[in-house]
Amino acid sequence: VTVYLVGAGPGDPDLLTVRATRLLARADVVVTDRLVDPRVLRLVAPGALVVDVGKRAGATDPAAAQARISAQLVEHGARGVTVVRLKGGDPFVFGRGAEELDALRSAGIDVEIVPGLTSALALPALAGVPVTERGVASSVVVATGHDVDGAVRAVLAAPRDATVVLLMAVANRGAIAARLLDAGRAPSTPVAVIERGASSQERRIPTTLEQLGDAEIESPAVLIVGPVAARLEAHDQKEVAPSQDRAVATVA
Amino acid sequence: VTVYLVGAGPGDPDLLTVRATRLLARADVVVTDRLVDPRVLRLVAPGALVVDVGKRAGATDPAAAQARISAQLVEHGARGVTVVRLKGGDPFVFGRGAEELDALRSAGIDVEIVPGLTSALALPALAGVPVTERGVASSVVVATGHDVDGAVRAVLAAPRDATVVLLMAVANRGAIAARLLDAGRAPSTPVAVIERGASSQERRIPTTLEQLGDAEIESPAVLIVGPVAARLEAHDQKEVAPSQDRAVATVA
Repeated sequence: VTVYLVGAGPGDPDLLTVRATRLLARADVVVTDRLVDPRVLRLVAPGALVVDVGKRAGATDPAAAQARISAQLVEHGARGVTVVRLKGGDPFVFGRGAEELDALRSAGIDVEIVPGLTSALALPALAGVPVTERGVASSVVVATGHDVDGAVRAVLAAPRDATVVLLMAVANRGAIAARLLDAGRAPSTPVAVIERGASSQERRIPTTLEQLGDAEIESPAVLIVGPVAARLEAHDQKEVAPSQDRAVATVA
Repeated sequence: VTVYLVGAGPGDPDLLTVRATRLLARADVVVTDRLVDPRVLRLVAPGALVVDVGKRAGATDPAAAQARISAQLVEHGARGVTVVRLKGGDPFVFGRGAEELDALRSAGIDVEIVPGLTSALALPALAGVPVTERGVASSVVVATGHDVDGAVRAVLAAPRDATVVLLMAVANRGAIAARLLDAGRAPSTPVAVIERGASSQERRIPTTLEQLGDAEIESPAVLIVGPVAARLEAHDQKEVAPSQDRAVATVA
C-alpha cells in the first residue's frame, strides 16, 4: 500500500484510531484538509512533507479543486513513498473519499482506507446526545445542509422518531428551518447545535426549529434535529485537551 | 470520572481510539459485551476484573437483563474505582448506552462517553463502500433490522439515492427483502453484506434484494442497501490483524 485514506476524527487527537496515529508517525507525505485539527498534525514525524490542500484549493470551482487534489495524490503515490491522505472526520462520510480512491486506483496505486470517527455521530455522543435511544430514536439519518432541498427532503422523509444530523448546514440553517416549519414541523422541535466540536473553542447551543435561524452559530457545526436533541449537555471543560488548557492559562 | 462508556469499534484493536486503549490499560474493572472482539480485551491490564455481561444477561427478558447490567455498573462505579463499560461499535448507535448513562447519572456517578467507530459506517469503508458519494449517495440512514416494520419503513422513507445500513438484520433479511419487493423496489437493487467484519473470519457477500433472503449469512453482519453497495470489494487478507495470522499459522 502506498496511499492511506485516513479519517482524522472530530478534532481531539485522542479520538484518532491507533492505526491513524501509527500511520501519521511513519508517513513520508501527509496531504491534509482545512478541517483537520492542528493538534492532529503534531503527530506527523519531523521531516515529513505536509501538504495543505484545503488552503490551496480555493472555493471558486470545487470540481476543479478536487481534481487537482486527486492529481497531487496520484503524483505522490506514484513515487512509492508512504502517503497519508488525512480528512476531518471519516473519509467516506461527506469526505469525497470515493473520488480520491477512484483516481488513485485508476492510476494503479494501492490504497487502504482507515475509517475515522465522523463528527456526525461522535460530537453528539461527547455532548451526551445518543443518536439512537430505545423508545425515543430508532434510526439516524446523516445528511448535508449544503443543499437546502436535499436537507429538507432528508428531514421530512425520516420517520418522526429518527434523529437527523446535518453537517455543513450553518449557512442554510434559516432557510432549512423555514421550510420545515412551512411543512408543518412543530416550532418547538428541539435542535442541538455543536460548534467547533472536540476543540478548545467548542460551544453547545440548545435551540428549537423556530429559533434556529436567529441563533448565532459559526462554521463548522453539527445540527441535531429530533427528540434526542433535548438531551444536549452543557459543555464540560474537562473535555478540553490539557495542552490547550495550558495555552489559555498562559495567555490569562 | 469513575465510569467510562467506551466504544470498542468494529473488532480490530487498531481501530480503537487512542483514548479507549489508554482507558483499558488503566481500568480496574472492565464490563464487556458479547460483541466485543477478544483481541480488544487483551489490552486490559493484568489484574483488572473483566465482567462479561453479554453471557450472563440471557435472552429471555432483554429489559430485565439491561436493568441488571445497569445495576452492576452502578455498583462498581459507586466503589470509586475506574470502570470501563466496553461496547462493540459505538455506545450510542444501537448500543443502549443512553439507558446505562441515565442509570449511572441517577445514582450520582460521573460518566464520560468515549465514542467508537460504529460497524454501520466503518465496515463499509473497510470494504471500499463509501456510504456517501457525490452524485450517487447524498445521505446515509442507519437503522436496525431487529424489527421488520421499522426496517422497511426506514428503507422506504429514505430518498432513492440514500444509503441505508441495517444492523441486526440477518434473521429478518428475507422478510425485509420481501416487503421491499412488494413495495416496488427493483429486484436488482444491490445489497452488500459484511459478515463478522474486521475479524479474521470476515466474509463479504455481494447480493441483490431478490437474492438476499436465500443468501447464506450469519450474525453479526451489516447490510448495505443502495447504489453504493455495488462497490463492495472482495476481501483483502492484508486487513487481518498480524496476531491472528500467527495463530492460524501455528494451527496449520
